[in-house]
Amino acid sequence: MSFKTIEYKGDSVVLIDQTKLPSKEVYAVCKDYKAVGRAIKNMLIRGAPAIGVAAAMGVAIGAAGIVADDFDTFKKRLDKICDHLSQTRPTAVNLFWAIDRMQNVVEANRGKSVKQIKKALIAESKRVLKEDISICKLIGANGADLLDDGDNVLTHCNAGALATGGYGTALGVIRGAHSQRKKIHVYADETRPFLQGARLTAWELMKDNIPVTLITDNMAGHLMKKGLIDKIVVGADRIASNGDAANKIGTYTLSVLAKEHKIPFYVAAPVSTFDFNIRTGDEINIEERDTAEVTHVFGKRIAPENVSVRNPAFDVTPNKYITAIVTERGVLRKP
Amino acid sequence: MSFKTIEYKGDSVVLIDQTKLPSKEVYAVCKDYKAVGRAIKNMLIRGAPAIGVAAAMGVAIGAAGIVADDFDTFKKRLDKICDHLSQTRPTAVNLFWAIDRMQNVVEANRGKSVKQIKKALIAESKRVLKEDISICKLIGANGADLLDDGDNVLTHCNAGALATGGYGTALGVIRGAHSQRKKIHVYADETRPFLQGARLTAWELMKDNIPVTLITDNMAGHLMKKGLIDKIVVGADRIASNGDAANKIGTYTLSVLAKEHKIPFYVAAPVSTFDFNIRTGDEINIEERDTAEVTHVFGKRIAPENVSVRNPAFDVTPNKYITAIVTERGVLRKP
Repeated sequence: MSFKTIEYKGDSVVLIDQTKLPSKEVYAVCKDYKAVGRAIKNMLIRGAPAIGVAAAMGVAIGAAGIVADDFDTFKKRLDKICDHLSQTRPTAVNLFWAIDRMQNVVEANRGKSVKQIKKALIAESKRVLKEDISICKLIGANGADLLDDGDNVLTHCNAGALATGGYGTALGVIRGAHSQRKKIHVYADETRPFLQGARLTAWELMKDNIPVTLITDNMAGHLMKKGLIDKIVVGADRIASNGDAANKIGTYTLSVLAKEHKIPFYVAAPVSTFDFNIRTGDEINIEERDTAEVTHVFGKRIAPENVSVRNPAFDVTPNKYITAIVTERGVLRKP
Repeated sequence: MSFKTIEYKGDSVVLIDQTKLPSKEVYAVCKDYKAVGRAIKNMLIRGAPAIGVAAAMGVAIGAAGIVADDFDTFKKRLDKICDHLSQTRPTAVNLFWAIDRMQNVVEANRGKSVKQIKKALIAESKRVLKEDISICKLIGANGADLLDDGDNVLTHCNAGALATGGYGTALGVIRGAHSQRKKIHVYADETRPFLQGARLTAWELMKDNIPVTLITDNMAGHLMKKGLIDKIVVGADRIASNGDAANKIGTYTLSVLAKEHKIPFYVAAPVSTFDFNIRTGDEINIEERDTAEVTHVFGKRIAPENVSVRNPAFDVTPNKYITAIVTERGVLRKP
């Protein structure tokens, strides 16, 4: 990749500020866990796997800043930090998965000095990042065979390098097929209200010289009807035990359109996106974000003052609309 | 209505500049037919019936400016003006319908003086406006019975007072039900890329104190799945003989979602929107507009430079997805 989504560098967490893309490629330097928490909440970094990596690094940098000699004091303060970070965004399960994983490291090192535990946490957060990239590459390799030479692939939001440690999930599948020398052309939904498709997916695919055409979300159905879309690949923020998948608002609509037009609809996500504590997608907490995301674009008002607004950030696609889920362990098809 | 969409006033065509809404309510004063043509092309005025009225007034003001004493010279020059106006936007059939109607007035007055014909054309264009408002009110009255007290009605783009001489087609149906004292709550799709829903529909419903909630286009499916949408009502720019309807891009997707969720899907349009010269929607010319509408919002760039873009302004909803078409002559249901 020609850029790094996030890294633990010196005593800072450094991440590309995705709210500034595509016009500016600037990096935010987070010196403490609160800065990491703000970066997640305000979507400087977003995408379920990337949120997981950021949360792990947030816990690590939070731990590093704790002044405590004994384990119990350290543990109590770290739990508070974990609590704080877990309240940044409610839908992506990878956030909670990463925090749990970091807390398990603390428990596993109970006998060691606080200094040693702090080091172990930083090392673990770097491992989460490294593993995430490896997982994405496996997802890419597993999913690549689902795409054919010459395919026009529609994707929604950004499930790319920017949404993960690197390489991407849905875009990982596209990168996998591309690296097999298949000619793939991507249609990227702009993905209102936050415009991750226009700002991020278009940007990172152009950086990698993968052909991409930008459309508004409401054009996808028209293109499908015209026979211009061969496959749909999206990411996921949380997948229930039964395979229902929460993803960026608008994904569900694409799945209904895919069914109507008999187009394969694939979800690409690491196993850590599965939440086996919930049976169906109905139990997934859907984040409702600030109405200003809808009424304003880059600070410019586009709707009347005081207009009533809904802004659910995600929707749930029932398993029956999903052709297969591509993970690092293989491709799960409907029974 | 608390505003006038368009009027022939003195020797000018005055229209509310819809590209400035909702932040500014300013009126464009067109002194000649070229200014009217530009207003149509650049969407200062838009919406199939309003385009028809504007075209009629454009012909009238164009005629007024012709310097000619004999009928043949006058007619030749007027035909050129009609040609010019007919090339402003290709999809709305009302444009061609209105121009034909004005040309018929010229023929019908062949024996009269040029001065008399000019007067007749101005009178005719005012009649087109007046009739359009009456037609909308009939559409509203005919469609009102389709909506029930307490309904949540989804609409797309702006098929309102701003899209017509006044009152609206889809919003005419809503106004009709509202005037029957039914409690109607409207969900307005923002309607990218031109944001007619966010800028115009929200604005005119708020002006009329009809409850409206703004959503992004990709939220509609999620709301339908949650049972929050009872009916869908949209306008149309051209309807083929078989009932296939061209309307703002994104309409087709809503019709597929409506089918999946068993929600009635209504098209509201005057009879002049029917194009009996074409058999099916496949024959409708879909306007592809400037890519800057997608890459920029109010002049602000939201996508990478040089990104490839599609920008079809309309799509076609096949008749099988349409529950009924509401016209001034009655409600046409599927056989």
